[in-house]
Amino acid sequence: MSFYYKKNYLHCERLKVKAIQKRVPESPFYLYSLAQLTDNYQAYASALQGVPSIISYAFKANSNLTLLRHLRELGSGAVLVSGNELELALTAGFDPAAIVFNGNGKTMPELRLAAGHGVLINVDSEFDLGHIEQAAVSAGKPVRVLIRINPDLDPGVHPHVSTGIRDSKFGIGSKHLPRVLDRIKASRFVDLVGVQCHLGSTIKDVEVFRDATALMMKVLEDVRQRGFDAKYLNIGGGLGIDYGGQQRMPKPSDLVECVRQVLSDDVTVIVEPGRSIVGSAGILVSRVIGVKSNGNKQFIVTDASMAELIRPSLYEAYHRIEFIEPVDGPRDTFDVVGPVCESGDFLGRDRELATPGEDAGVAIHDAGAYGYAMSSNYNARLRPAEYLVDGDRLTRIRRAERLEDYMRLFEAGDRTAGE
Amino acid sequence: MSFYYKKNYLHCERLKVKAIQKRVPESPFYLYSLAQLTDNYQAYASALQGVPSIISYAFKANSNLTLLRHLRELGSGAVLVSGNELELALTAGFDPAAIVFNGNGKTMPELRLAAGHGVLINVDSEFDLGHIEQAAVSAGKPVRVLIRINPDLDPGVHPHVSTGIRDSKFGIGSKHLPRVLDRIKASRFVDLVGVQCHLGSTIKDVEVFRDATALMMKVLEDVRQRGFDAKYLNIGGGLGIDYGGQQRMPKPSDLVECVRQVLSDDVTVIVEPGRSIVGSAGILVSRVIGVKSNGNKQFIVTDASMAELIRPSLYEAYHRIEFIEPVDGPRDTFDVVGPVCESGDFLGRDRELATPGEDAGVAIHDAGAYGYAMSSNYNARLRPAEYLVDGDRLTRIRRAERLEDYMRLFEAGDRTAGE
Repeated sequence: MSFYYKKNYLHCERLKVKAIQKRVPESPFYLYSLAQLTDNYQAYASALQGVPSIISYAFKANSNLTLLRHLRELGSGAVLVSGNELELALTAGFDPAAIVFNGNGKTMPELRLAAGHGVLINVDSEFDLGHIEQAAVSAGKPVRVLIRINPDLDPGVHPHVSTGIRDSKFGIGSKHLPRVLDRIKASRFVDLVGVQCHLGSTIKDVEVFRDATALMMKVLEDVRQRGFDAKYLNIGGGLGIDYGGQQRMPKPSDLVECVRQVLSDDVTVIVEPGRSIVGSAGILVSRVIGVKSNGNKQFIVTDASMAELIRPSLYEAYHRIEFIEPVDGPRDTFDVVGPVCESGDFLGRDRELATPGEDAGVAIHDAGAYGYAMSSNYNARLRPAEYLVDGDRLTRIRRAERLEDYMRLFEAGDRTAGE
Repeated sequence: MSFYYKKNYLHCERLKVKAIQKRVPESPFYLYSLAQLTDNYQAYASALQGVPSIISYAFKANSNLTLLRHLRELGSGAVLVSGNELELALTAGFDPAAIVFNGNGKTMPELRLAAGHGVLINVDSEFDLGHIEQAAVSAGKPVRVLIRINPDLDPGVHPHVSTGIRDSKFGIGSKHLPRVLDRIKASRFVDLVGVQCHLGSTIKDVEVFRDATALMMKVLEDVRQRGFDAKYLNIGGGLGIDYGGQQRMPKPSDLVECVRQVLSDDVTVIVEPGRSIVGSAGILVSRVIGVKSNGNKQFIVTDASMAELIRPSLYEAYHRIEFIEPVDGPRDTFDVVGPVCESGDFLGRDRELATPGEDAGVAIHDAGAYGYAMSSNYNARLRPAEYLVDGDRLTRIRRAERLEDYMRLFEAGDRTAGE
């Protein structure tokens, strides 16, 4: 692992995180390890060796441009969920042929952009198919599509991140599938090249991927029997990571093993990992503002908050929290909270930690995915900087927002005149 | 009310919202009514007539600069929770004497800024007092403080917005109070001028404010008996609004009535309304992308999402959702969802609505508070524009983010060199 302790100091590759914290002007900040990102990607690449496949990194987990470029250099494709993510992918140099555009509510401008660049598009619903066809007509060329199937499989995760159950907003149920296939058949502008499903995220039980793949192989057979030349089987993403630091979590190789068992040779598999590639490659580095007690509770107040990392508040997500340096105050049970003015602003609850002094460094682990990506300006806080470690080299890969960035949106000069 | 229906079209003051939607290039967008904002403020001002008082608007609910300026012109003070909010308050011309700086994790740079400008500062904890004193020493002049008391009162709201119970991270419990008072007494740089409590938000039962005021009057008496010349009694904010559109909700006059009963003449009351001033003054205007069904569920997919309004996902908050124009499709029960790629992306669940056509306009009501303020770039979505109606005049009061704003933070040229 690229984040590790040596003499009670947290290290990121060859650098001491405390030394980084002293050196950079911002607090809190996100810190990524290039080696860890690479390892996480390579775990998929090795597992898929010999299997015709595309690894499509899910931008929504983290769309820092430097990290995207690095993944592209490693050979990654992309799965995107907005037109802006497509702009980012093009800027980062991703090959349109290895890009999947996904989503239940793609707008016409987004679809025209996608059709123009010839990326694969997931058909999420009948109305979506209509829009995709219109976009293809605008672009003057057929688009290649996958059908997103609602597999009605429960991956046993938080309802907010479970996306393949029957009542999910995503995908096409078996009842509507024949009609969608007929419409595609009739269209000169839509080429069906495969099928897709996505069960959710933070999945710990890879067996559910075997079930999904078996089910999707059947759907693919069905599609082929209707005369479509479909070769892509996109099983989505969703592999969980070990937020607790203790569980035996399935690895990409376990996932691929499950999937491979039910795969035939003439199929190109697409996987869409996000969290499992970038999650463990990033931490949020913060400082202790102070320690207080109230009633029966002790609090460590840090300068990081739900504005930078909303997962604990939004999903009751658990992130390991550790000091980046030796701290030898008495051990106690703390809620680790931020300075945002609501009780939902916590990073961890009931954590056994040593009592820190002020300014002690705090790492919130596994914050690489859905950390910065979901950050806000709540309480007029400005978004933090992001830094990347590569061996002993530290690079800032996104500067912190400044008040002028916030104020810029208020600038006059282009107001709509009164009616 | 400033948002109302006439001939099945939603109006904002004298304008048809559909006409506004046709006219502005962005979708979704936030739309505010100046008359409604004014009415909501004036409801507090009238209720407090004859009571020595300061109405401190809580910036965290919505810190749009134009709305702030308008509130300041109406005579509002401010309650702030970050240094950036203080910068905004100064830009908007608020009087530092009517500004309260609140928060459980104020940083030293924030406190130095606050001390320099002579704003009232709430002491949240012993460590906070130490920092405030340091900041006053830096500023070379004493600061005036209130003590934030943890009243151990349960307002019966969502745990994330309940802030005055014993186990809350906010305020000072009765056990620690004497020690804090002794420290203040001993300091030449900290002047205690009052006490504060804040119970939470979305409060429907104003009786709890009477209990809190009675309790705080006792604390104030106590403080005075220890020789402090304290006159401010800050009862915080937290009055709920009628998100459902059907309940009889307490008004500012009900709140003030409750409080007035237990108040003595020599006290200046501070109230800190946020939601009840700006919540009902704003809506989120969106369009239907399409309608789909899955399993037993029907979905209306709009171009607004949890990225623009996270309250339904984060707090299970209910917002009324209505079409802004006549829609005559068959009535059904829908989940109203956005295009963001997770199941947590919904705006309303199980809503009885007519089946809309594509592009039909949708209003999400009472989105003025904690709407834009908590928005994010999730899925690389860009923050929406904000517009203000004043009679028949429409003004853009914050432009939409552009991709270049997002990309600007990646610009090179100021990277940290390698170690």
